[in-house]
Amino acid sequence: MREALINGSGAASNDVSALETLGPAAKLTDADPSEIPPASGPSRENAVTISDILERRAKAGRLIAPTASYSDSDMFKGPQVGKPKSKSMNHHLSSESLSRHPCALKQAARHLKNPGIISLGGGLPCAEYFPIESITLKVPTPPHFSEAATSQSGAEVRIGKYDTTDPSIQGTYDLAIALNYAQASGSAQLLRFVTEHTELVHNPPYSDWRTCLTIGSTGALEQTLRMLCDGPGRRDCLLTEEYSFSTALETAGPLGLKVVGVKMDGQGLLPEAMDELLSNWNPEEREGRRKPHVLYTVPSGQNPTGTTQGLERRKQVYEVARKHDLFVIEDEPYYYLQMPLEESKETGSGTTAAKEGEGEGKEEETVESFMSSLIPSLLSLDVDGRVLRMDSFSKVVVPGSRVGWVTASENIIEQYLRHAEVCNQGANGISQVILYKLLDEQWGHEGYFQWLMNLRREYTKRRDTMVTAAEKFLPKEVVSWTVPVAGMFYWLKIDHSQHPGIQAGKGILEVEEEIFNSCIARGVLVARGSWFRAEQDTEPNELFFRATFAAATAENMTEAIRRFGEAIRESFKL
Amino acid sequence: MREALINGSGAASNDVSALETLGPAAKLTDADPSEIPPASGPSRENAVTISDILERRAKAGRLIAPTASYSDSDMFKGPQVGKPKSKSMNHHLSSESLSRHPCALKQAARHLKNPGIISLGGGLPCAEYFPIESITLKVPTPPHFSEAATSQSGAEVRIGKYDTTDPSIQGTYDLAIALNYAQASGSAQLLRFVTEHTELVHNPPYSDWRTCLTIGSTGALEQTLRMLCDGPGRRDCLLTEEYSFSTALETAGPLGLKVVGVKMDGQGLLPEAMDELLSNWNPEEREGRRKPHVLYTVPSGQNPTGTTQGLERRKQVYEVARKHDLFVIEDEPYYYLQMPLEESKETGSGTTAAKEGEGEGKEEETVESFMSSLIPSLLSLDVDGRVLRMDSFSKVVVPGSRVGWVTASENIIEQYLRHAEVCNQGANGISQVILYKLLDEQWGHEGYFQWLMNLRREYTKRRDTMVTAAEKFLPKEVVSWTVPVAGMFYWLKIDHSQHPGIQAGKGILEVEEEIFNSCIARGVLVARGSWFRAEQDTEPNELFFRATFAAATAENMTEAIRRFGEAIRESFKL
Repeated sequence: MREALINGSGAASNDVSALETLGPAAKLTDADPSEIPPASGPSRENAVTISDILERRAKAGRLIAPTASYSDSDMFKGPQVGKPKSKSMNHHLSSESLSRHPCALKQAARHLKNPGIISLGGGLPCAEYFPIESITLKVPTPPHFSEAATSQSGAEVRIGKYDTTDPSIQGTYDLAIALNYAQASGSAQLLRFVTEHTELVHNPPYSDWRTCLTIGSTGALEQTLRMLCDGPGRRDCLLTEEYSFSTALETAGPLGLKVVGVKMDGQGLLPEAMDELLSNWNPEEREGRRKPHVLYTVPSGQNPTGTTQGLERRKQVYEVARKHDLFVIEDEPYYYLQMPLEESKETGSGTTAAKEGEGEGKEEETVESFMSSLIPSLLSLDVDGRVLRMDSFSKVVVPGSRVGWVTASENIIEQYLRHAEVCNQGANGISQVILYKLLDEQWGHEGYFQWLMNLRREYTKRRDTMVTAAEKFLPKEVVSWTVPVAGMFYWLKIDHSQHPGIQAGKGILEVEEEIFNSCIARGVLVARGSWFRAEQDTEPNELFFRATFAAATAENMTEAIRRFGEAIRESFKL
Repeated sequence: MREALINGSGAASNDVSALETLGPAAKLTDADPSEIPPASGPSRENAVTISDILERRAKAGRLIAPTASYSDSDMFKGPQVGKPKSKSMNHHLSSESLSRHPCALKQAARHLKNPGIISLGGGLPCAEYFPIESITLKVPTPPHFSEAATSQSGAEVRIGKYDTTDPSIQGTYDLAIALNYAQASGSAQLLRFVTEHTELVHNPPYSDWRTCLTIGSTGALEQTLRMLCDGPGRRDCLLTEEYSFSTALETAGPLGLKVVGVKMDGQGLLPEAMDELLSNWNPEEREGRRKPHVLYTVPSGQNPTGTTQGLERRKQVYEVARKHDLFVIEDEPYYYLQMPLEESKETGSGTTAAKEGEGEGKEEETVESFMSSLIPSLLSLDVDGRVLRMDSFSKVVVPGSRVGWVTASENIIEQYLRHAEVCNQGANGISQVILYKLLDEQWGHEGYFQWLMNLRREYTKRRDTMVTAAEKFLPKEVVSWTVPVAGMFYWLKIDHSQHPGIQAGKGILEVEEEIFNSCIARGVLVARGSWFRAEQDTEPNELFFRATFAAATAENMTEAIRRFGEAIRESFKL
């Protein structure tokens, strides 16, 4: 056990094999994670480096981007030499999206760049009436990320109202800008950071890629679905993993979309199964629904199954997407929580040095080695421009900022912005200026990667606590799992066939509910597997529970797993 | 001129009368603003007072509302003695809205109130990994609101990560809560404040009213339209003022809604015109569109016309809504920017004392007199529960928070929340905790009202600067206006019939564009009236420009109006 891994690019299984954990469809492919080659995607060759970025910035000089000024990624990208342009994806767009036009008032703002112009145009309040003179943050200094270290050696970062116009400060971003209205794309300041970060990590293989900020991936997904899908009019479906993020399913349903689940194995979505499904699609057998043209997938630490697609798997998924002309929504909140099993064996749990994030692990991990260890994204494989990637700060900085970003081709981002202008006006400025000050000015790209490295060490320890508890307290005769190599979820398969209730004719949902209630009574809350079933209108034939190792302390997590084990034993009369 | 007004409840006109300013339909009603009685709505009788609120809070003790905890307005409202329940408005809901169910994961959170339960349920990150130890704000101390006073005597307000669980602080809200995920309704802490504020100001006349936070009124409007309207399926229309907020129009269009404009006069929307329109609605003459059942209106300082509905007008609008079973979306970003003309004459412009907001005006305005001077809202007249009111912090605190709130009946708010859970997860926590600390803990209700009083004094001065400039620089033979008594917009009617181009056969849009471009060339940006036309598919027969007095300095505003006057003179060959 746990011997398989390899630079975060595969999955390991406990004594119940990954093939079996997710059911018979797994047999369509060879999913033994130990056979997955180490990650080495196209994006690391000719990769842009942090030094390139710093050089580019030095050449450009101080970024001047006053209130509500227009910006886009092209202002911050490096030269896209030798890359083709994206292919048009306009045939995927819904009639709602195609009928959108730019906001008249936002468009008028382009005249504001004329020297000396006085605006009586937009209804932007005067910064004089913003009742906040300054915001001061106390934040960690890389690589001293722990709460204790921050308390001792953290930095005080001040954001004043007029930092950009005060000649003695010459700031790049300030409260007068951040507290006012802004463009839906996000502020130039934070857009620059995420554009550069995206180029550093993904370096999309076509030239006209862009990013824009979002109000978080929840909102980004709803916007994207409305942009690409038309349930009532076009009879659209949405493809996704057979178990998928419940909120995503709850988003798709009311839009009139039929969600279609694709079989999975220990590495998540099965390309062969998707190919077969699409090749044999017959609208007449599908209530008149046309063949799906949009896939929603979570390649790393998938919610709820915790599975991670290796590089080869991603390439196969992308090839099937090309073959059937799918547009792909790549939702990657857990991308940086890729947790190699090797490292987890070495760091163990609870050593203070590692906890402090001082980089004192046995093998000195560098930013370069960290970046190389990440499995390449679908975005980095996307030669066509058929992927929209959703990134999030929720799992790696704070969820309460409600700020994320999307990356796709210029055309797609333009359509996205047309919708954002009327449905949310983009991310809030207060969070943007705080994130900018922390990530860009205080930490920089290097410091942010160090933070992410620290975070994945922490999550690795948490996962290992859960592995230990599960091995100790769960009855293996009925509970099995694959140790996740990314994310924050543990997916527990229960062999319902051995359950006395099932044997006496009860349904799976009924048994699931009994166990769930028994868990609540014993003082542990877990998520029911049925909440995540893509096709809610079919009968389940498997029984799962999802447990997260993200939140509880090590002690509580262990106790919670003990209680869960007790509930299972009682229910199965073991 | 400017002699008419009276407690913010009417509108005054310059030498071109209000009746004429907005065209012939105005003649349907008597809109002479001087005849409007002073505001005295139902909401000030039996009104809840700030002392009532303080007493209620003292009884309830410290608010305990940890991470992602459920809350609703009923926890914070006073007794609703003698009020009827709202009527069901479910027949207004779209099929999209009716198909929504509560989020499985959010629902599961209700088990978290069980003592001793350990959650492995939701994917909430651990606060230990939030890289912000504290946020410190510098903010004004009432009533010393000016920037200079804040710099000298402002308060430092600190928000720590664990203020609520630190026994030495016993805080109500902290970063560990605010930076994590939360309920879509908003945090209990800020929800309490806006619920109490709503009760103080509007005291809705039915018992089961509720509020919930929003991501700002832009997003709230899109959500509400999708909740109430169905363009493609039900062939719905949206009623609104004949000139309306351009972003609202741009929101409705792609949803397949046909926008239908209602004639206006100097007090905004004309109830008789709306009644006539609805009484004579014939789907066959309207491309098969069914009779409109939703009205979107901005009663105070309407955008773009700057008109304000007096109390009698509001009552009439509400009665027509009842007669035709309309659901009303009341969008009130400018509600507190009601600017009595009397006061503006007294305070004049530029006196330092008034600018400092020290309350040294000639007549001592009290919080009570301020509240009594506000024209009652449609919400406060709404005995049926057919109004959804949208409130915003954008114009009165900061737009960059992207936080507002809506008030409506319990059923409507429930449907709103079902949508919010999947389309944005509610307002961001960083802005919420900052607004809470400022408005609730630092200022309290009393201090916030003082802030609003200060703000309306400031806007009154700004409006008066524009009045003075307009009277000095605009050629009255072709430009006319009504002095606005609320909001931030000046609506300038141009008598196109005198234009040489029009006389030579040019179209109004062509002349509008020429003048707009001439303005840009002369260094002033104004908004074109045609951007705001509700029915974009008809030919315009009037010519307007909108100017805001919200943003530019007095000097720049005056210069900008001078340039605008120059552009007009040149275009008209005066």
